Amino acid sequence: MIYEFPQKILFKHCDPAGIVFYPRYFEMLNDCVEAFFADIGFAFEDIHKVGRVPTVQIDATFSTPSLHGDRMVINLQITRIGRSSIGLDFHAHCGGSTRFTATSTLVYISPDNSAQALPDDMRTALAPYLRRTT
Amino acid sequence: MIYEFPQKILFKHCDPAGIVFYPRYFEMLNDCVEAFFADIGFAFEDIHKVGRVPTVQIDATFSTPSLHGDRMVINLQITRIGRSSIGLDFHAHCGGSTRFTATSTLVYISPDNSAQALPDDMRTALAPYLRRTT
Amino acid sequence: MIYEFPQKILFKHCDPAGIVFYPRYFEMLNDCVEAFFADIGFAFEDIHKVGRVPTVQIDATFSTPSLHGDRMVINLQITRIGRSSIGLDFHAHCGGSTRFTATSTLVYISPDNSAQALPDDMRTALAPYLRRTT
Amino acid sequence: MIYEFPQKILFKHCDPAGIVFYPRYFEMLNDCVEAFFADIGFAFEDIHKVGRVPTVQIDATFSTPSLHGDRMVINLQITRIGRSSIGLDFHAHCGGSTRFTATSTLVYISPDNSAQALPDDMRTALAPYLRRTT
Repeated sequence: MIYEFPQKILFKHCDPAGIVFYPRYFEMLNDCVEAFFADIGFAFEDIHKVGRVPTVQIDATFSTPSLHGDRMVINLQITRIGRSSIGLDFHAHCGGSTRFTATSTLVYISPDNSAQALPDDMRTALAPYLRRTT
Repeated sequence: MIYEFPQKILFKHCDPAGIVFYPRYFEMLNDCVEAFFADIGFAFEDIHKVGRVPTVQIDATFSTPSLHGDRMVINLQITRIGRSSIGLDFHAHCGGSTRFTATSTLVYISPDNSAQALPDDMRTALAPYLRRTT
Repeated sequence: MIYEFPQKILFKHCDPAGIVFYPRYFEMLNDCVEAFFADIGFAFEDIHKVGRVPTVQIDATFSTPSLHGDRMVINLQITRIGRSSIGLDFHAHCGGSTRFTATSTLVYISPDNSAQALPDDMRTALAPYLRRTT
Repeated sequence: MIYEFPQKILFKHCDPAGIVFYPRYFEMLNDCVEAFFADIGFAFEDIHKVGRVPTVQIDATFSTPSLHGDRMVINLQITRIGRSSIGLDFHAHCGGSTRFTATSTLVYISPDNSAQALPDDMRTALAPYLRRTT
C-alpha cells in the first residue's frame, strides 16, 4: 500500500520567487511521517512516552517548483523494516508532475537514546506499506 | 539603556510578495529576547534548568514592509518589572523607517508552571534597560 | 456564523518545554485566515493576482499551554468590515480550555501597495461571519 | 579555504526532546549558504535581480543531537564548480562532536528558470573554497 498525504501549498511555504522554500518541504515530510504513524495507530504523542523515532538520514531531489495553491500529494512507502530502523521513500507530485522525491531513515530509540527493537505491533502496522520489489 | 538587536532580512523571512511574512517577525522577537537575556547573564539554556520565561501576551503593529537584504535593528526596552512579570517594548527600524512596533509580557515561572518572583540578580540585570518615563 | 479551523498540535509546533512555541500560533492563525478566505471563495492564490490582504496589526494573549497531540480548534469571527480593512477575532480552544485569543486587522491593498476598497463580492462573502453585537 | 558559519542553537530550533528539530537544520544550511554568498560579494538580494540559485538536491546525515545553547559551527566547502551548478559540502560540529554532515547542489538559473552559465566573477569568488582533493 501507498500512504497518501495531501498538502496544499500555502502562502507560508513560498519564497520571494513565488515557489516553495525547500526547508518547508522537510517540515511537510515530517508532518507526513507524523500523520502516517498516527493513522496506523502509533501517534507520536503516544510513542514519545516510551521512546522516539528521530530521522537519522534524509535526502531529497527537487524536480519541479511548487506554486502557491498547488494541491500536492506526498506518497509514502516503506522500503525497509530493520531491527530498530525504518527506511522510507517519498514521492511528492501534483497533477502528474513530480515535485520532489526523498528517502529517509528513522530509528526507534528509547528515552536514554539507545536504539531499541521495533515493537512487534508497530512492525505489524508498518508491514502493509512495505514496497513490493518483486 | 536600549538593547539593540541587528537582524538582516534573509531570504527565508520573505513571502511571495518579496516582503517579510509577519509570523517570522515573531521568531525574530523571540530571538531578540533570547539574545537580550543571554547578554545580561541569564541565557535561556541556563534559566530553563530552574524555570521558564514564557510570553503570555504580545501585540504588534506592522508599519512598513521589510525587504530581503534590509539591515533592520530591533530596539528592546523594558517598560515594567513586576513581581514575576516583565513588560517589554520593541521598535524595529531600518534606515529611519519604522518597520514594526510591539509590546509583550513575559512571566517567570517555576518548572511546575506557577508564577514565581523574579530572582534579585535577574532584577538587577534587567534594571538598566527599564525605560525612563521622566 | 463562526468559522472553525481544526488544528491538531504537531511535534513541529512544540518547544523543549513540550508546549507550543508561540510564533507557531501565528503561523496557525495565518493558515486559519488563508483557509477561511479559500472557503468563502477568495483563495489567496487568486487574490494575489490582483492584490493582497496583509495583516497590519495583531495581538494575542496565551492563556493555557497546548500540548503535542491536542486537538485544538480556532474559531474565527469578523468584528468589522471597513472600506478597505477587516477586523478579525480568534478564539483557540481545546476540550473546553481556552488556549489563546487574538484579534487582527487585515487591509486589502492593490499591487502598488495602496489600500483599496474591498470588492462587493468579497464583502458579501464576509458578511455572514460578522459578529452580532446586539 | 573553509567557510565557517557559527550558529548557536536557540530555543526556537529545539523540539520537545530538547534537541534540534531536523528541518531547522535545513534553514540553518540555507542561512549558511546565503551568508557565504554575501561574504564573497554575491548577496542573494542582489543575485535575485538577475537570477536565482535554488538548491536542487540535498542530503544530510544527523550524527549527534544538538542541544539548546550549543555553539555549533557549520563548515562549508565547495566540491565542484560546473558550468551552471555548484556542489557544496557541509560539516556541522560543536566541541569536537560532529552534529551532521550534508551535501547539496545549487544551480544558477535565469529569471525564466533555465540554467545559465555561472558568471566569471562568481566563479572566481567561489574558487578559493573549492576543496583540494590532492
